[in-house]
Amino acid sequence: MTETIDSFHRGRFRLVQPLGQGHRSGMDAMLLASLVAAERPCRVADLGAGAGAAGMAVASRLEDAEVMLVERSSLMAEFARRSIALAENQPLAARVSVLEADVALTGRARVAAGLADNSFDHVIMNPPFNDGSDRKTPDALKAEAHAMVEGLFETWIRTAGAILRPGGQMSLIARPQSIADIIAACGRRFGGIEITPLHPRPGENAVRILVTAIKQSRARLILRAPLIMHETESHRFAPDVDDLSNGRIAYRRK
Amino acid sequence: MTETIDSFHRGRFRLVQPLGQGHRSGMDAMLLASLVAAERPCRVADLGAGAGAAGMAVASRLEDAEVMLVERSSLMAEFARRSIALAENQPLAARVSVLEADVALTGRARVAAGLADNSFDHVIMNPPFNDGSDRKTPDALKAEAHAMVEGLFETWIRTAGAILRPGGQMSLIARPQSIADIIAACGRRFGGIEITPLHPRPGENAVRILVTAIKQSRARLILRAPLIMHETESHRFAPDVDDLSNGRIAYRRK
Repeated sequence: MTETIDSFHRGRFRLVQPLGQGHRSGMDAMLLASLVAAERPCRVADLGAGAGAAGMAVASRLEDAEVMLVERSSLMAEFARRSIALAENQPLAARVSVLEADVALTGRARVAAGLADNSFDHVIMNPPFNDGSDRKTPDALKAEAHAMVEGLFETWIRTAGAILRPGGQMSLIARPQSIADIIAACGRRFGGIEITPLHPRPGENAVRILVTAIKQSRARLILRAPLIMHETESHRFAPDVDDLSNGRIAYRRK
Repeated sequence: MTETIDSFHRGRFRLVQPLGQGHRSGMDAMLLASLVAAERPCRVADLGAGAGAAGMAVASRLEDAEVMLVERSSLMAEFARRSIALAENQPLAARVSVLEADVALTGRARVAAGLADNSFDHVIMNPPFNDGSDRKTPDALKAEAHAMVEGLFETWIRTAGAILRPGGQMSLIARPQSIADIIAACGRRFGGIEITPLHPRPGENAVRILVTAIKQSRARLILRAPLIMHETESHRFAPDVDDLSNGRIAYRRK
């Protein structure tokens, strides 16, 4: 198999990633990681961590964060373990662990797998989405793909709600069309939902939404000012997005 | 009773409005009206029209639009009729009518009240929201207010779905926290949902969302670039928002 070793946060940590199969991490994972703001030691779960990009980005920026990478695929979990073992990642290696477990587990099975209730301060997730549904496909297939994605948010957010301590924060990055599924899955488990649209350039449609929510909060949803990745004529990232994606700052809740 | 006569669209039409009771229209109604773009003659229903601000704004900008103001309250419907009868509104008076009917009617009762199925090209609505739920109230009251609002979108959007022709456009303005209720109510009735957040100033949270959707479309939701009402240091409206709210241009779908 072909693989690559990629640098993140301007070389502060590295990731071993498969080339040509599995999910490759980049901008999405870095922005997801930026949603975790913490001044004190905290426990963080990265659900569906893949090779561990988002979770390791949190550990890289926050020296007191202890991060558990939760990944169902043995293949991807092995990439995560090898990433942690890289010499360049030594500063964070002791604070990052890998748990091979399915995020969809429930009740006792989830606890038995290593995901105890009320045990994390932060849960982050970048749930997979079916790129196939972007293409022109027969309606039945489209409907099936859509149904799968709906169930996915319910399942993943249910697990986040279980393993977070009350007052703990869930953070996720997703596509704009998932907004209603995400809010519905938050239901009574989460409140204080904050949504920030991410646009490639001024005037263009959002390509992602950044979402945070607080377990058991009753605060109402807010829709924040958008993040714009690039100035109109530039290929470089806007300064705030560059700072967020390179681990220099956190994107704080209001 | 005290009342006022207010100018809209830089004096192109006027509205008789009650002072101190009932809903007084302004910016929300004008932005809602801007969502109707049409080159040909079209039939427009303004659901919950109040004194008729949004519907009359459509009739003012689009010379070939025929507008029905649908209002349950006899009091507000009478204001609408008196507004239409003002001398200044003569250019649009023949194209605007008032129907006293409850938007929540269903089936034959709705048809009998004057709202035939598949009979409008555009439906616009600015559903009332309970400002009381903004204040600190006991949880039971808060929950009741919330439930009322949820049911309201389902009810109003069901009626919009019935009276629009296939391919017709629903437009609404609402608060950001209603976003999930609106999308859920669109369900299989509407697709091609386009959402535009409206922010008072750069960096501030959205205070409204502008939503359009197409009856029986299967196109996916998009989250558009926001509208910003004011430049950072200015009290004047930004030029694009000023043009939209004064009936100079329509806010077109993508």
